Amino acid sequence: MNTSSTPGDQAVLEALAALRATVGEAHVHCPTGPDDAGYRSQQTDWRGRYHGWALAIVAPADTDEVAAVVRVCARHGLSIVPQGGHTGLVGGGAPDASGRQIVLSLRRLRRILAVDTTNLTLTAQAGCLLAEVQAAAAEAGLLFPLSLASEGSCTLGGNLATNAGGTQVLRFGNARDLCLGLEAVNAQGEVWHGLSGLRKDNTGYDLRHLLIGSEGTLGLITAATLKLYPAPRSQQAALLACPSLDAALALLKAARDVLDAQLTGFEVMGAYPLSLTLRHQPVQAAVLSALGIDTATPGGNAAALPAWLVLLDAASPLPAAALQEQLEALCAQAMDAGWAQQAALSQSDAQYQAMWALREAIPLAEKSEALMVKHDIGIPTSRIPRFMDDAAEALQAALPGVRVVCFGHMGDGNLHFNVQGPAGMPASDFLKQHQTQVETIVYDLVQACEGSISAEHGVGQLKRHELAQRADPVKLGWMRAIKQALDPQGLFNPGKLL
Amino acid sequence: MNTSSTPGDQAVLEALAALRATVGEAHVHCPTGPDDAGYRSQQTDWRGRYHGWALAIVAPADTDEVAAVVRVCARHGLSIVPQGGHTGLVGGGAPDASGRQIVLSLRRLRRILAVDTTNLTLTAQAGCLLAEVQAAAAEAGLLFPLSLASEGSCTLGGNLATNAGGTQVLRFGNARDLCLGLEAVNAQGEVWHGLSGLRKDNTGYDLRHLLIGSEGTLGLITAATLKLYPAPRSQQAALLACPSLDAALALLKAARDVLDAQLTGFEVMGAYPLSLTLRHQPVQAAVLSALGIDTATPGGNAAALPAWLVLLDAASPLPAAALQEQLEALCAQAMDAGWAQQAALSQSDAQYQAMWALREAIPLAEKSEALMVKHDIGIPTSRIPRFMDDAAEALQAALPGVRVVCFGHMGDGNLHFNVQGPAGMPASDFLKQHQTQVETIVYDLVQACEGSISAEHGVGQLKRHELAQRADPVKLGWMRAIKQALDPQGLFNPGKLL
Repeated sequence: MNTSSTPGDQAVLEALAALRATVGEAHVHCPTGPDDAGYRSQQTDWRGRYHGWALAIVAPADTDEVAAVVRVCARHGLSIVPQGGHTGLVGGGAPDASGRQIVLSLRRLRRILAVDTTNLTLTAQAGCLLAEVQAAAAEAGLLFPLSLASEGSCTLGGNLATNAGGTQVLRFGNARDLCLGLEAVNAQGEVWHGLSGLRKDNTGYDLRHLLIGSEGTLGLITAATLKLYPAPRSQQAALLACPSLDAALALLKAARDVLDAQLTGFEVMGAYPLSLTLRHQPVQAAVLSALGIDTATPGGNAAALPAWLVLLDAASPLPAAALQEQLEALCAQAMDAGWAQQAALSQSDAQYQAMWALREAIPLAEKSEALMVKHDIGIPTSRIPRFMDDAAEALQAALPGVRVVCFGHMGDGNLHFNVQGPAGMPASDFLKQHQTQVETIVYDLVQACEGSISAEHGVGQLKRHELAQRADPVKLGWMRAIKQALDPQGLFNPGKLL
Repeated sequence: MNTSSTPGDQAVLEALAALRATVGEAHVHCPTGPDDAGYRSQQTDWRGRYHGWALAIVAPADTDEVAAVVRVCARHGLSIVPQGGHTGLVGGGAPDASGRQIVLSLRRLRRILAVDTTNLTLTAQAGCLLAEVQAAAAEAGLLFPLSLASEGSCTLGGNLATNAGGTQVLRFGNARDLCLGLEAVNAQGEVWHGLSGLRKDNTGYDLRHLLIGSEGTLGLITAATLKLYPAPRSQQAALLACPSLDAALALLKAARDVLDAQLTGFEVMGAYPLSLTLRHQPVQAAVLSALGIDTATPGGNAAALPAWLVLLDAASPLPAAALQEQLEALCAQAMDAGWAQQAALSQSDAQYQAMWALREAIPLAEKSEALMVKHDIGIPTSRIPRFMDDAAEALQAALPGVRVVCFGHMGDGNLHFNVQGPAGMPASDFLKQHQTQVETIVYDLVQACEGSISAEHGVGQLKRHELAQRADPVKLGWMRAIKQALDPQGLFNPGKLL
């Protein structure tokens, strides 16, 4: 029994013994210290901001064991940090350094429990990878539309606990909109059997929606029943070069009108992040060349690039030719109206993938370029152009020379609005000296246009203090009262969100 | 000041004076007694089951006055029954007979506050009629898709408090799915300013979804921001005569696959309710004749009618010809596969309306026919045929000769499953002697197939005891803890839901 570097008091030894008795010796791991390489990934968040040290990493086999672990922790005064793939971006899944928390890994709850091809539902345990859920749906000839960059390593439970977003929210909504029922464990270590596959059920408070997005602070999600959709018959993307955000917005409106639910994605990429992408991944130039955009300048010259590039994604129950006809008409309308200066449709699966690869290259190029002050904001789409102007102006006034790296899911108002320091200033200096100032400028403007300081990433540790400062006081009061009522002992993920 | 028939003690007089000072003399009405004709509609529920007697009917002018009324009631020990159009079917809006409750009417909060045609959102006060909200959207060339029979008299606040369903849930979801933000008053009489028009916002617990469907027991919804959709370019309905529910289910699956989001409604009507419709509204025979269905037998002979008639509704961004082509292909597929024996497409607006009028005639025919034991149930669609067989068998075994009147929103698993007594037995005797027995048989079978005892009508007073008996104990525990945390004084709609 290796407890050499955990607090050695008798209570802790008893707690560990009880945990081992609950899930088996093999599924209680005690890291030897904060730097234990074997378990570093479970103690430090994905972005490397938060380093903790769990007393133990506990991996129950099933829902009953999860409930039993909760009872053990309640009895022994340990708190619980639930973890799935641990790919969150706000430190919600990292333990603190007290040594009085366990990481509860849901990764062994990994079964697809049922696929109902008539009711169009799928029931899976929380530890299934998102990609596994997608695959199980596809195997049944159906679609589970939640899709995000980390889908190969994030888990369903984490997706629901954080209400994950991604690239198809415009049509299908966030994770919460794709979930019909939950199974979860409460702070008393009891199981809520709520795996409903119903699309209509008005029998009391909607606890499903309360748990979804609560970041593991109210209950532990152990399984979920999800909505499936018919697989589309055709799918096609278009890239359009827009002279302004107002033009992109007019295009969005027309696209919704022409395509309705066939419009599944509407992403924007600013000229500056595109130039970074060309600099760090020159291979991406081919996609732009197909649009007739000159990318000959080595290193990517932002001035020569379109102000905004729109990636429009569409999926349809109609055959490919019918979808293409609608997209061609839309592109022609956009060119006629001056909303776009160039437009190209994907003409093959390879081109479709290449267009998305360009969009997905941006965060990677950003990472290669420099550390930045990052914001994941939500803005009513109608206010996006004005917000961008105001934010750029306020930032330049405060910090001349800063560069805005803006891209994201414009169709649902979610922008990744990142700020790079002026040319020549080391990135670490910029962050050290100006991060708080930049955040204040950006978040003040976000609030002024009734936006959100966390559109899809959640609150976790990163934005906890911002939320406490900025959220509506009545909302905060309600949240605190609910937390106190459902988890009076502070067992579930303390120090996160609230 | 007319308080002659209210409890005359000093505390009540002081409470009334404070309410009058808050909203003005003209907006505090004291009914003279339980039968006061002027206010009967606000004291007795729409179905006439629950009769109460409010100390006063109070109609604040705006959100701040709502909050002030809450503070007055809290101070004076009065509880609050919120009311919109008072069209609910489970007694959720009726006061009790204690004389210590006020009805708080939201009907003066009736302004459309904003329509954002770019963000596709509409913000309206809670007292707006649903039809007024629909009209404001239509005026802007857009669609607000919530639609139900009472739309001319129910209010937005009531729709949200009860999470109303209706006929387009299959595509657009329930009321909760159409709401992005709320303004609401808490039990301390403070206002939550949550009128967000964001499609992505992960900043804490989703209080919007907690309040929606809570039937006025946690907070008072005063305004909401709603999702709008592009108006469809074409809309068409089809009637199909199906030999069985299995056949109807196969048709539903094909319809979802062929039409995807263009499928907006999928209603079923059993032969027996159709025969009642023909008996009480012979004019409806024309719609069936267009299908080639013989309705010559006067009075409607159920044996001569199709076992199940499906009304399929579709709306599309495509021109009418393109939608018609898809529907024709679907009908041909259904005939070939034997899922339907007859099929007819609406060929004009008048025919479209006539098909829906047939469907809407059923509840009216039912009302003309007799009192029945009514159930508003949700079942996973895949289990509907089996449930119907089992329920019919169990009912016949227990009560030979009873007749099942089944129709509803099969596309989302919501059936109105009503039971009429055997021929010759007076309806009132049947209800008096067998209502509880019938409900137990039906609800036991609903639970056995993981269904809901209230798919869209809610709990109110009618199903409160059923819910307490049948709901998952962990769910009930969470609900009670939340109610206690947010409304410790029991100010909001006591005796409803929980």
